[in-house]
Amino acid sequence: MPYSEIDYRVRDGIATLTLNRPERLNAYTYTMRTEMLDAFDRVDADDEVRAVVVTGAGRAFCAGADLGAGGDTFDRGKTQEMFAGEDDVLEDGTPRDGGGTVALRVARCLKPVIAAFNGAAVGVGVTMTLPMDVRLAAGNARFGFVFARRGIVTEAASSWFLPRLVGISQAMEWAVTGRVFDADEALRGGLVSRVVAPEDLLPAAYELAAEIRDNTSAVSVAAIRRLMWSGLSAPSPWDAHAADSRLMAALGGAADAREGVTAFLEKRAAAFPMKVTTDLPPEVPDWPVRA
Amino acid sequence: MPYSEIDYRVRDGIATLTLNRPERLNAYTYTMRTEMLDAFDRVDADDEVRAVVVTGAGRAFCAGADLGAGGDTFDRGKTQEMFAGEDDVLEDGTPRDGGGTVALRVARCLKPVIAAFNGAAVGVGVTMTLPMDVRLAAGNARFGFVFARRGIVTEAASSWFLPRLVGISQAMEWAVTGRVFDADEALRGGLVSRVVAPEDLLPAAYELAAEIRDNTSAVSVAAIRRLMWSGLSAPSPWDAHAADSRLMAALGGAADAREGVTAFLEKRAAAFPMKVTTDLPPEVPDWPVRA
Amino acid sequence: MPYSEIDYRVRDGIATLTLNRPERLNAYTYTMRTEMLDAFDRVDADDEVRAVVVTGAGRAFCAGADLGAGGDTFDRGKTQEMFAGEDDVLEDGTPRDGGGTVALRVARCLKPVIAAFNGAAVGVGVTMTLPMDVRLAAGNARFGFVFARRGIVTEAASSWFLPRLVGISQAMEWAVTGRVFDADEALRGGLVSRVVAPEDLLPAAYELAAEIRDNTSAVSVAAIRRLMWSGLSAPSPWDAHAADSRLMAALGGAADAREGVTAFLEKRAAAFPMKVTTDLPPEVPDWPVRA
Repeated sequence: MPYSEIDYRVRDGIATLTLNRPERLNAYTYTMRTEMLDAFDRVDADDEVRAVVVTGAGRAFCAGADLGAGGDTFDRGKTQEMFAGEDDVLEDGTPRDGGGTVALRVARCLKPVIAAFNGAAVGVGVTMTLPMDVRLAAGNARFGFVFARRGIVTEAASSWFLPRLVGISQAMEWAVTGRVFDADEALRGGLVSRVVAPEDLLPAAYELAAEIRDNTSAVSVAAIRRLMWSGLSAPSPWDAHAADSRLMAALGGAADAREGVTAFLEKRAAAFPMKVTTDLPPEVPDWPVRA
Repeated sequence: MPYSEIDYRVRDGIATLTLNRPERLNAYTYTMRTEMLDAFDRVDADDEVRAVVVTGAGRAFCAGADLGAGGDTFDRGKTQEMFAGEDDVLEDGTPRDGGGTVALRVARCLKPVIAAFNGAAVGVGVTMTLPMDVRLAAGNARFGFVFARRGIVTEAASSWFLPRLVGISQAMEWAVTGRVFDADEALRGGLVSRVVAPEDLLPAAYELAAEIRDNTSAVSVAAIRRLMWSGLSAPSPWDAHAADSRLMAALGGAADAREGVTAFLEKRAAAFPMKVTTDLPPEVPDWPVRA
Repeated sequence: MPYSEIDYRVRDGIATLTLNRPERLNAYTYTMRTEMLDAFDRVDADDEVRAVVVTGAGRAFCAGADLGAGGDTFDRGKTQEMFAGEDDVLEDGTPRDGGGTVALRVARCLKPVIAAFNGAAVGVGVTMTLPMDVRLAAGNARFGFVFARRGIVTEAASSWFLPRLVGISQAMEWAVTGRVFDADEALRGGLVSRVVAPEDLLPAAYELAAEIRDNTSAVSVAAIRRLMWSGLSAPSPWDAHAADSRLMAALGGAADAREGVTAFLEKRAAAFPMKVTTDLPPEVPDWPVRA
């Protein structure tokens, strides 16, 4: 599948997904959405990919929904073509929020995902990144949960993710003011983990991705990512304990555990033999899906 | 309804609710509780009100439950008059914790609520503010979750709200020591967003309220407030996604969205026509109520 | 029960549980697990104990699972003796993750638990402490959620506890890199509340324990600990409100509340008469257990 609004490439075990409409500040469209969903499927299907970096081409990360349709932009009656597929509607036929389809796909990804904010990330441009694992920002990045200023609501399941990332009070302050804020406010508020100089942004993202790639079992990382994110939904730690127990029973005697412990005791780098596409045990949990 | 223990006034689109028993350090009573519940009903019913500021008269915010009854203060058998109404008991007839009735009312409010701590906020004086969106403190404010020092338990549903605001470890440290602490510890622990000089407290609260009032759709803000707070209860992001999708379908083609996008494209301030009392769609979620 | 791998002693109302295999950096074994479970039962059964401090003998806190069995360490088929008891398997017969049995026991403890990290805390050495209330670290302590580097998964229900302690983004960064990090990174990330000089570590832990012991009702503290931790599992604040109401009805007229309020009004230290072993009301909530 050739992409028209994103760029996707894999090098040294790390996939880079670049939002690629720089002349429109990478404004989000239905096409971009569909291409992102496809790219995350490729990520999960490609054992070479150990981590994903998401960034933007040009001076923005993503300026939000493309407002080219003016006042009709968010009118579902005027955008029927965006809800043609079975996966595009809820069970009751309601058109699914597009940003949410991306966010929920990212949440279930089997590889860690790092957002590298090279510039403005506004509206869906920031909410789609909330289920990514780590967010890094260039000093010139700006952010805004501007929905209340456009007469719509926070989307991309951000009412679920944002309070769990930054706390309900910071989430409410950003969401009900709709304020656009700079990288330092994002850092203080816990939206990003680090702010770096623009030229250091991608190197920092790749360094973190390489730390994962060079040291860990891909199967462990996939299982842990699902455990942690779906654990946010688990009713109690007893559920997590049951999931842990099943995964330790499935993986504790498998080849990666054997190699991981042996390599550690021999003080050498581990060479993990297992692959996500073929060796991920069925005990790996998933979100409870209800929509 | 004239109030005797609070003061309520609306100016420039912002309601101020002042706890008003300064001679008793605004100690909380059943009357104060009932007046607060009524005031929040007025807030929701009045389209002129875009945000609420809650503060205290005199030198305290609220010193906690009025202990005028001495050792009988928390004895439900001695305070029957406080549980006369149907809404005052759980389904099984247990008298409802009074602070909780306020906290749960605030949690469902359709307007953002800002606490401005002008002085001591102890016991129910601080727990009742946990479902408010933003907490600002004067430098001389003090706080205490003192329940364990009185032989009772944390109330006002604070076992639910506090760990979600400040993390379970900070919540436990404050709750099991019962320690009284200053504004700086509150800031470091994440209980308040900002500490300012006493004379800057109300101006800071009004500035934040005005930022909401001047830039946003009242219907968007009401819907977002419910999405976020009830989203804290949503079992998974798929629930949030369903809620988002229904609200985007309901609001995306409505007048506020049309005006919000058009005004943005025309680089002018938006004049949102919709009203909370008449135009809030039925898709706006609410808490799952179980008591 | 004499212990062989931990030391347990009670002094001045504070229990100290010391992981005690210094020649093996206190590496965790099935024996240590069983002794810890027993010690927490003693904590709950002994009214003299008002708080617990957990630390390590020698230069480490706990270096993680004892890897003496080499590549077989995590192979459940090779470690049958560890799952002999009924409590050692899930309902479906799956061997229970051992770290999880400790973590879940700690989560339900009726006394506050303070971890004092005197040195390295790696793998289960750190995950077992996540349900403790407060974590303090010596400046030389080091931490690692190293599971992905050993080919296994995060355990001890840490997929549930860790994101609720430090946020999902920090949790993911530590868990998918498997990085070993120092006390300052632990402090910045919210894993520990304070970093102190090594010689100040136990004094700081005991000072906090004494603050609890000297000022609070043991029954209040036990009830609050259960309210807060199980409140993390409560579907909504209405559930917490119901629990609060029942506990206030049960405790508000009891001897500790009477003494707590009276002593406060008389400006003297309270002498709370009630005991956890005999006076804890049945309304005290517990986790929803499902495994």
